Amino acid sequence: MRIGLIGTGTVGGGVIQILEQKIEYYRKALGVNLELACICAKSDEEVAPYKAKGYTVSTNADEMIADKSIDVLVELAGGYNMPRKWITAALENGKHVVTANKALLAKYGHELFPLAESKGCHILFEAAVGGGIPIIRSLQEGLLGSTVEHLSCIINGTCNYILTRMSEAGLDFADALKEAQANGFAEADPTFDIEGIDSAHKTALLASLCSDKYVDFEKIHVEGVSKITAQDIASAKDFGHTIKLCGIYHRVGDRVDARVHPCLVPMDHQLASVNGVLNAVYLQCDNLGEALQTGAGAGRMPTASAVVADLVSLARSTDCGKRAALPMGFFKKENPADLVSMDETSARYYFRFSAKDACGVLANITGIFAQNQISIESIIQKNVNDPSKVCVIVITEKTLEKKAVAALNAIDALDSVADKSQMIRFLG
Amino acid sequence: MRIGLIGTGTVGGGVIQILEQKIEYYRKALGVNLELACICAKSDEEVAPYKAKGYTVSTNADEMIADKSIDVLVELAGGYNMPRKWITAALENGKHVVTANKALLAKYGHELFPLAESKGCHILFEAAVGGGIPIIRSLQEGLLGSTVEHLSCIINGTCNYILTRMSEAGLDFADALKEAQANGFAEADPTFDIEGIDSAHKTALLASLCSDKYVDFEKIHVEGVSKITAQDIASAKDFGHTIKLCGIYHRVGDRVDARVHPCLVPMDHQLASVNGVLNAVYLQCDNLGEALQTGAGAGRMPTASAVVADLVSLARSTDCGKRAALPMGFFKKENPADLVSMDETSARYYFRFSAKDACGVLANITGIFAQNQISIESIIQKNVNDPSKVCVIVITEKTLEKKAVAALNAIDALDSVADKSQMIRFLG
Repeated sequence: MRIGLIGTGTVGGGVIQILEQKIEYYRKALGVNLELACICAKSDEEVAPYKAKGYTVSTNADEMIADKSIDVLVELAGGYNMPRKWITAALENGKHVVTANKALLAKYGHELFPLAESKGCHILFEAAVGGGIPIIRSLQEGLLGSTVEHLSCIINGTCNYILTRMSEAGLDFADALKEAQANGFAEADPTFDIEGIDSAHKTALLASLCSDKYVDFEKIHVEGVSKITAQDIASAKDFGHTIKLCGIYHRVGDRVDARVHPCLVPMDHQLASVNGVLNAVYLQCDNLGEALQTGAGAGRMPTASAVVADLVSLARSTDCGKRAALPMGFFKKENPADLVSMDETSARYYFRFSAKDACGVLANITGIFAQNQISIESIIQKNVNDPSKVCVIVITEKTLEKKAVAALNAIDALDSVADKSQMIRFLG
Repeated sequence: MRIGLIGTGTVGGGVIQILEQKIEYYRKALGVNLELACICAKSDEEVAPYKAKGYTVSTNADEMIADKSIDVLVELAGGYNMPRKWITAALENGKHVVTANKALLAKYGHELFPLAESKGCHILFEAAVGGGIPIIRSLQEGLLGSTVEHLSCIINGTCNYILTRMSEAGLDFADALKEAQANGFAEADPTFDIEGIDSAHKTALLASLCSDKYVDFEKIHVEGVSKITAQDIASAKDFGHTIKLCGIYHRVGDRVDARVHPCLVPMDHQLASVNGVLNAVYLQCDNLGEALQTGAGAGRMPTASAVVADLVSLARSTDCGKRAALPMGFFKKENPADLVSMDETSARYYFRFSAKDACGVLANITGIFAQNQISIESIIQKNVNDPSKVCVIVITEKTLEKKAVAALNAIDALDSVADKSQMIRFLG
């Protein structure tokens, strides 16, 4: 199988390195012949080291994609526009595609997957979600004897690192972010990660795989972690919980409940101990019961390892006659998931209110909860001796999001409430 | 794909149930046509309910296997002799095989896998190890971009349930076993499970997959959990550890270190919180780093779910032309793993000695450790006021098994030592 690779950056470089390590092993032990036929990058400088090693290199991706001798395009350039064009052209030319580009698949998968299916081509993307966790393959194959009823996942290493450090060291969000950046776990512009967009891309892909329907990532509810405070983490701990940014999928009959937001996770839940840049996917299935997979979420070698596993898998699928591509044609706009709106969801809620004084505010707050028919599980007041910093933590019983939001807005409108209040859902 | 099923017991019945649930889904969503062509069991009574439902049934497995219209044999009868004969005949007839029979594969895999390869047939066995964990598929496909350097696993639900209850409730081994039996988590004759033999079958299969060599389960070191006492569990806790029965694989250059024995696992290790009948596989890989998969280890529906996933996978591999079977031909006596002997392994050790009196015994014990050049990390004496029950716990630094055993034997020979001493290795 002749491979054309676009991108010699972190992951692309890692793929070349693994192929150099293991290509002989694949040939001997697995009977799989992989050949890195062409390495393509934007500039001569980027491809020069590979040219020097004797590889065929190119700075013209279109030309490489037009080359009929190349069987599979490995797209590791990142971004939307060029990869979309390249992958479309590759599929039109009957080439298979391997990519780690979750943003592209979340945004344009509805074009690319059906196109691949119509051309009899595979798009493999194990590296797009939790590089070190073979979750795509598990959902597409290993778990097919069961239906996924619920999935919750920690799939953004940046956010998980930040929340872990806030929890372990009591850091504020801003300091934890700075530390993450200093350690290479957060980008200079971290928006995509910390606002949950990357998690939404991945959650949409997982929800589509679980439901066999097109889950449009732009339509799912997304909250990031930038509004989580050290106080929230500390209060969660008081209640035996930790805070994690979770991607969530629930099967609700024929409908799909998919969303990304911070969650209070009980300390004895398997996701609670998934710390640092580690990723994890937790599943509840009809026949199989509970399952958890954890592993590195990103990073050069874990992601590259997933790309190479896809290449081996693809070579095994196509070397001997032809194995039909895994069905992803459902992933199109004409087959949209019927999404459950946030208003319809329910959860236990954690609220944190900043009150100007402790005297009347509690009566006001509890009154509003009562008006909205929300049962309160517990209330804790902190700093009652310092009227300028009174903090009221309320944990509710399970209630409708619609009611919770109505209560939140009513309370925020009170004169006795200072800053904007916090609302975080419990996982479950 | 026409399926011939042998065995209508727990797992076989579950497979029929899942096929009834999902066969239409597979057809519509995945384009996979599965047909339960024949259900075979020992007696008319066993097949009667299925006959009543309109299935073709049989009490003659040989006849069913000779039927050329059947594409795959699903063997869920259990035991060695008949399944070996049936599977051999099926492969000779060009049929694929799906089985959950780890004992059979560990014992006769060296005949069956090479035979399958020579006939171009698949043997799929996801259900044989950790039914709810798609670990076989992960090792054969998802993790192929990496080399497994280390694997440790909890793959016997009976033992894990017993150890969990000993730890949680302070039960003795005998009481925990009785509770497991009462709850259906242990057989009436639990020997196979509690003495580690079932874990050895599974560990040998995993070690073979990791090393591409034949790991003979009869040659790997096996210890079970029947000698673990409540005192050991409590002492391990004092040191921040829990005790788990672990299957272990280490790559040692070109050699293989595979074994099954109880381990002291640090409480913050991902395996420590795998409790009850849950199974888990923990991996350290060169490129991928650390990964963990947990899930149900056994039980009707999780195991059946894995069998059905194999059937779907197989149908997808064979419906469109032919996909070569996953290479398992290495699994033969002519390609044995060069096994590291226990003497050559090293670990930190936990020892528990029962001393007749507290006065001189400590000097004797420490003297013997010194003679064997073993560094002691810590010593705790318990019940020093009751000379008949003095208990000495010794934790050593990392040392060679050979030295540890020599010290153990020398100490056991002391007059001042009462019962046979305990020796448990730390994981790592």
